[in-house]
Amino acid sequence: MRVNYEKWSMRKKYFWMRVWEDYEIGYLDRDLLPLIVLLNRDRDIYTTSSCSGRIVVVDGEVPWIREEAEVVFKSHIPVNSSEIDFVYKTSPRSSYWLVVTGPIIHISTTSIKKAVGLLNRARIAGFKHSGIMHVSTTRGVFIELITGVYITQLIKTRNINVVSPGDLVEVLAVFNKALIEGKHRLQKLYDTLQASLPENPDLDIEKELGVRRVEIIERKPIEIFHEICGEICRSI
Amino acid sequence: MRVNYEKWSMRKKYFWMRVWEDYEIGYLDRDLLPLIVLLNRDRDIYTTSSCSGRIVVVDGEVPWIREEAEVVFKSHIPVNSSEIDFVYKTSPRSSYWLVVTGPIIHISTTSIKKAVGLLNRARIAGFKHSGIMHVSTTRGVFIELITGVYITQLIKTRNINVVSPGDLVEVLAVFNKALIEGKHRLQKLYDTLQASLPENPDLDIEKELGVRRVEIIERKPIEIFHEICGEICRSI
Repeated sequence: MRVNYEKWSMRKKYFWMRVWEDYEIGYLDRDLLPLIVLLNRDRDIYTTSSCSGRIVVVDGEVPWIREEAEVVFKSHIPVNSSEIDFVYKTSPRSSYWLVVTGPIIHISTTSIKKAVGLLNRARIAGFKHSGIMHVSTTRGVFIELITGVYITQLIKTRNINVVSPGDLVEVLAVFNKALIEGKHRLQKLYDTLQASLPENPDLDIEKELGVRRVEIIERKPIEIFHEICGEICRSI
Repeated sequence: MRVNYEKWSMRKKYFWMRVWEDYEIGYLDRDLLPLIVLLNRDRDIYTTSSCSGRIVVVDGEVPWIREEAEVVFKSHIPVNSSEIDFVYKTSPRSSYWLVVTGPIIHISTTSIKKAVGLLNRARIAGFKHSGIMHVSTTRGVFIELITGVYITQLIKTRNINVVSPGDLVEVLAVFNKALIEGKHRLQKLYDTLQASLPENPDLDIEKELGVRRVEIIERKPIEIFHEICGEICRSI
């Protein structure tokens, strides 16, 4: 299978423009930006929707997202119990679940070889469940980099509080710790990939970055996370 | 990348022998056997360690398995609260977590094309997180077929019962339902693959199956599950 580079690079341009749109409207996790830029600086790589790790409250029969489940709270930094005590003041349509997921990075490359090289390096950095998800001549070799950092907790059904309000702080402490573990793996992935990327610089993107001069991309993901996080991270 | 078929098929022979050893000592989930056999009947496919879906209790700081976490209870069928009330009678080294995982199938194929074909069909059957994990000339193109069926619940820390004994039945009902959802996806995967496999029959294996005559492989995974499950499945 050979990727059609012309069509593939049109898609790269589209997703690269979206990175900056999403960044400007605050939709892109800021601590993800240095890694996203590093990856896209390689001629044979682009990124699509990714996440730096988050804690959510889902209202659903089960916590995996389906038509009938809904995210009712979302945070990319540790959570205080006061932020989610609404679960004890409202009734879920189905059940309230607390869910923490580590970082998930979606990448398209122009070859299997390139994809396998990234997978091997990602695995070393703690992204152990990573794999090639799709292969297409126009969309490229699509990979997902993912850690095993994932916990759910049923907090409340329509009938009962499974976690009592007094125990929520202790449960959140575990979830916040897992979120931070994910952020450290993101930093490790960045360090690992920075040692080898870009293999073939994408000259358009290098030129654009020279003009754009975005200060944040010079910094480490974990530093940006600590800055966004502020007081709550100092108390963990 | 070309797989060395000679070396690859020596590994296939080894894993095929292990299937029957594991089956005979009761280590292989019986409801997995029809799918395992179906896959191996194709000349370009073999399977390695796989799971039909299970509920476990893990003693660990976090529920993902690491050196310091330990599985202290395991079941491939729905669980009664009396089977795990030991969590309230003993103290965990760290914390007790209840975890349910859907089926996970590990497969090696002789080509990317074959692997991608299986991935596409698996995704239709609800194995949405499946991907190519490794590529090697001797070990082949290694894929993991996996669903999003995965829930954890922190039951007890060293300090507190997060789930009170009186609420365990309600939590288990959710976990048992998720386990069964996983078993239905396994059946769907079997149905989907049975329509197209074997593409190139493995003559050695066809011959051996003719001699072995294992009645169980003629049956549906979900039927075998219901038989193993017995009374507890009729009450769910």
